[in-house]
Amino acid sequence: MLDLSGIYPPIPTPFHPDERVAYDLLAGNLERWLAQPLEGIVMPGSNSEAAFLTRQERIDAWKVCVERLEGSGKRLIAGTGAESTAETIALTQAAAQIGAQAALVLPPYFYKQSLTNEVLSAHFHAVAKESPIPVLVYNVPAFTGIDFTPSVLLKMAEHPMIVGYKDSSANVVKLASVLSKRPDLQVLAGTGSALLPFLSLGAVGGIMALANFAAGPLRKVWDAFHQGRREEARQVQCSLAEINNSVTSRYGVPGLKFALDACGYYGGPARRPLLALDAAAREEILAQLRALGLCQGNPGQAGASG
Amino acid sequence: MLDLSGIYPPIPTPFHPDERVAYDLLAGNLERWLAQPLEGIVMPGSNSEAAFLTRQERIDAWKVCVERLEGSGKRLIAGTGAESTAETIALTQAAAQIGAQAALVLPPYFYKQSLTNEVLSAHFHAVAKESPIPVLVYNVPAFTGIDFTPSVLLKMAEHPMIVGYKDSSANVVKLASVLSKRPDLQVLAGTGSALLPFLSLGAVGGIMALANFAAGPLRKVWDAFHQGRREEARQVQCSLAEINNSVTSRYGVPGLKFALDACGYYGGPARRPLLALDAAAREEILAQLRALGLCQGNPGQAGASG
Amino acid sequence: MLDLSGIYPPIPTPFHPDERVAYDLLAGNLERWLAQPLEGIVMPGSNSEAAFLTRQERIDAWKVCVERLEGSGKRLIAGTGAESTAETIALTQAAAQIGAQAALVLPPYFYKQSLTNEVLSAHFHAVAKESPIPVLVYNVPAFTGIDFTPSVLLKMAEHPMIVGYKDSSANVVKLASVLSKRPDLQVLAGTGSALLPFLSLGAVGGIMALANFAAGPLRKVWDAFHQGRREEARQVQCSLAEINNSVTSRYGVPGLKFALDACGYYGGPARRPLLALDAAAREEILAQLRALGLCQGNPGQAGASG
Amino acid sequence: MLDLSGIYPPIPTPFHPDERVAYDLLAGNLERWLAQPLEGIVMPGSNSEAAFLTRQERIDAWKVCVERLEGSGKRLIAGTGAESTAETIALTQAAAQIGAQAALVLPPYFYKQSLTNEVLSAHFHAVAKESPIPVLVYNVPAFTGIDFTPSVLLKMAEHPMIVGYKDSSANVVKLASVLSKRPDLQVLAGTGSALLPFLSLGAVGGIMALANFAAGPLRKVWDAFHQGRREEARQVQCSLAEINNSVTSRYGVPGLKFALDACGYYGGPARRPLLALDAAAREEILAQLRALGLCQGNPGQAGASG
Repeated sequence: MLDLSGIYPPIPTPFHPDERVAYDLLAGNLERWLAQPLEGIVMPGSNSEAAFLTRQERIDAWKVCVERLEGSGKRLIAGTGAESTAETIALTQAAAQIGAQAALVLPPYFYKQSLTNEVLSAHFHAVAKESPIPVLVYNVPAFTGIDFTPSVLLKMAEHPMIVGYKDSSANVVKLASVLSKRPDLQVLAGTGSALLPFLSLGAVGGIMALANFAAGPLRKVWDAFHQGRREEARQVQCSLAEINNSVTSRYGVPGLKFALDACGYYGGPARRPLLALDAAAREEILAQLRALGLCQGNPGQAGASG
Repeated sequence: MLDLSGIYPPIPTPFHPDERVAYDLLAGNLERWLAQPLEGIVMPGSNSEAAFLTRQERIDAWKVCVERLEGSGKRLIAGTGAESTAETIALTQAAAQIGAQAALVLPPYFYKQSLTNEVLSAHFHAVAKESPIPVLVYNVPAFTGIDFTPSVLLKMAEHPMIVGYKDSSANVVKLASVLSKRPDLQVLAGTGSALLPFLSLGAVGGIMALANFAAGPLRKVWDAFHQGRREEARQVQCSLAEINNSVTSRYGVPGLKFALDACGYYGGPARRPLLALDAAAREEILAQLRALGLCQGNPGQAGASG
Repeated sequence: MLDLSGIYPPIPTPFHPDERVAYDLLAGNLERWLAQPLEGIVMPGSNSEAAFLTRQERIDAWKVCVERLEGSGKRLIAGTGAESTAETIALTQAAAQIGAQAALVLPPYFYKQSLTNEVLSAHFHAVAKESPIPVLVYNVPAFTGIDFTPSVLLKMAEHPMIVGYKDSSANVVKLASVLSKRPDLQVLAGTGSALLPFLSLGAVGGIMALANFAAGPLRKVWDAFHQGRREEARQVQCSLAEINNSVTSRYGVPGLKFALDACGYYGGPARRPLLALDAAAREEILAQLRALGLCQGNPGQAGASG
Repeated sequence: MLDLSGIYPPIPTPFHPDERVAYDLLAGNLERWLAQPLEGIVMPGSNSEAAFLTRQERIDAWKVCVERLEGSGKRLIAGTGAESTAETIALTQAAAQIGAQAALVLPPYFYKQSLTNEVLSAHFHAVAKESPIPVLVYNVPAFTGIDFTPSVLLKMAEHPMIVGYKDSSANVVKLASVLSKRPDLQVLAGTGSALLPFLSLGAVGGIMALANFAAGPLRKVWDAFHQGRREEARQVQCSLAEINNSVTSRYGVPGLKFALDACGYYGGPARRPLLALDAAAREEILAQLRALGLCQGNPGQAGASG
């Protein structure tokens, strides 16, 4: 079974000021991520503005990623979820053909009242059956309104191609329930602050917005945990709490893109309707980055995301 | 200002068993709707499986609708919402060019935490500014998780191209608040059971799944209300409550499509992941339709949606 | 069966500045309500700060109410809900003995995960079985987190002592469902803006915070509806939307108490933790009352609730 | 500052079959808990059916607890929350006078719309100001619908008598946020499955239903964590996941009481409206207890809780 353990950033999609995808700037960012202590990348995750991308943009972005990652030993986990089962299968197969090693599959979520556990299981089994690559179920109730129960996750994972899940809701009770029955499943924390508590229960890593610009400190948490330095692990983990909130729940994608700008990547603007951060938010994020030593010099470029 | 008062069905998108759009069967259904006491149709609404349609499918469906409605005096209200502002504008302009008289605009909803009132207002104002046709805001929190406040609806409606809203949450308190400030806004009930209470407060009509196969009884409610027959209005409205639940919250799109099959339209299967109804649900719906005299003979075709 | 049709205020509990119940001021308020076009009062409702009252305070308040209402032909509907079944029964029996004509029973709500439809039905049937007076089920999900389904309401109403329900969530879809099966049930709107739409579907009246100081305009809505003056009913109903919001969702109990002060009743302070309104909120409410002609002179007393 | 680190059960309130509190059986249970590896007890917590107790029952139970704990070196943390500020203060002072070492304070929760962060902070500061003993804030959104933000917790903890919080929502993201700013605060996990992940981030212990009958395994998690045996900690923690679900979210208080019966304590019936477990639920819990070696012989007494 493919070992997905490790730290992954769900990378933002860079846009030009006119909202076109900036594939060249994506390539530039990838060069920088390759130099970081990461096991790979996720494209697109929620933070990649997947909801705003056309199918063709998603495919073109995968091609750029695969080309850059080639020979690096790093993995591409492709986000392939769509509302319909047929489109999810088509995207998963396309990602596999282009060269993704695994798929992270957002569930359908619009027709919430019809999406019973039975419907969700059938959907994921249909996808797994047609997928050439291992599938991770993606639990992100803050965006989808769908919060998988342990029993539906276990039901889905009866299919051998469903190898685990990512949980952006950071639910440790759910994690303990699932791993008590299936300790072999590969679970990934879905937000930076959950890395250490998830590792403590047996998760294999994390797919975290924070990893886009803070791979170093997250790796410190990882190493300290695995080497038994409990106090160091705790301290580094907690030190990341505020910047983690800023680039997820508090300021969302515009916050993450601004942080990227400030750390020497290209963040740039989000697509509308998302609005640029105001000055106070930018200053708050800069202060948090500086306190962690993550901000490289004067983020002159940061204004570009405004 | 365009008068949108009246009764409209958000029509289902017919699919072949292999999930392709059945444009010919759509044309056939349109012939039947033209003979009903309806002021027009909505395509696509939530019940049209809009979430499963590609952009091209949506455009092709509009073309079929416009062609059939031509000369009938009936209106096409086009569903043009998308997650990104740019795509929403592009779809709205395309619908107008093809011949839609108004647009029903679902808001963005994935990045809930970032979708503040400010962001939502800016989005709708940007759409209104570029729209050649009047815009209705679409409030359907059960699907989107976004529930517009009266103040944000009033803020949006400051733009002259935003002429009203559809409310699938049937919120009469919100309706009273909005109309107390802007009695000129055109509000449409978004579910069959809300028609009479919405009319009582000054709403101009309804966009209701129920109107796909029960235009007659809904027209009776309308006429009885406007002609002051309170008791008849109440009785007919309440008589529709159970079938209305069946084709909305209880059985969703598969329930609606089965009811269409039973009433002589083509309903057919929904796209996956939505599952066909089981035998008990089908029997329940048939019994409700028969009790209302809506079911035409033996729905032999109904099995096709199974 | 007891006819509960009509308009009722859930009356606030007056407190002295030191938070003791001001029974004498309650008696004074009752004198004024007796002169209003009301069919009775509810004590305590949510707006009466029931959650802050001891059992003895509740009982003493009932005694004051019964004494004042005696001979007036007006009804006392007593709020008798408690978390445990035994306490709910004891309170209902006490209220009946003191002289209440009916009970409005809030459900248990703390152990939400255990409060299945089966548990809720058994609770209400146990209460109904021991109650000497008719019972109204009280649906107020904004406070309790419990939102009764139509089917559980119908199940409860199989007991002859359960004669209807009050719905503060103003759900017209639920109302149509319930009345389609049991048109004999007595349903009361639970918020001022819902009166007209609820009447249109067959509700028998309302228990509304607004009725504490706006019985006149609410009676106009009632009369206009029953006499077929649709436009007048609509206009008066909508004119009350803003002040209704202010004394319910927007400013809650402190807002209601301030409005009472401004209209010549004793409102006074709420018990802590509820805080007094700030100056801006007070001015907003005064402006709304003045626009409706409800504010009597200069509310010098209003400062007392600050 | 009082060190509250450790493992605590929120002990059930035993009732006779006629629903009276069984103080003698409480005393008997306390004898057994004194022999367990626990730092003390919590009375009443949510699992103690606090919502069903009168003020006098609460006080009498505290007296029994203090008497039994005397000289044992174990702590009584008293649950003293009530809807009104005045009652919360009165209960806290009573608990302190009787001999409780700390108070666990459930927030007010009925008037959700009025319970802003400002109101909640003022309430807790008022309680802290009058409390003779340290106060823990109690976060249990599944029951209260109130979910404290990190910022309001930090605001409350500005008062020196507010020394930490218990979080039954097991939110590790919140925990990291709070401890990053105030590493001195004493946070306690509020459900058994959260113990290890909470410890990993710096929490000082747990107040967990599971500790009522599984203090031994929870102590193993604690010891393994503090002694650096990561794999043992993880395995024991995960092994408890299913029984933890059974006595909390899945079967609630009746599930917990049945488990107590099966483990040699007196569980007995819950107060109505809570219903006894059915046979299938009882068998499921017995199987979970047996698998963990927690069930002592044949729980003949268990039928008593049926």
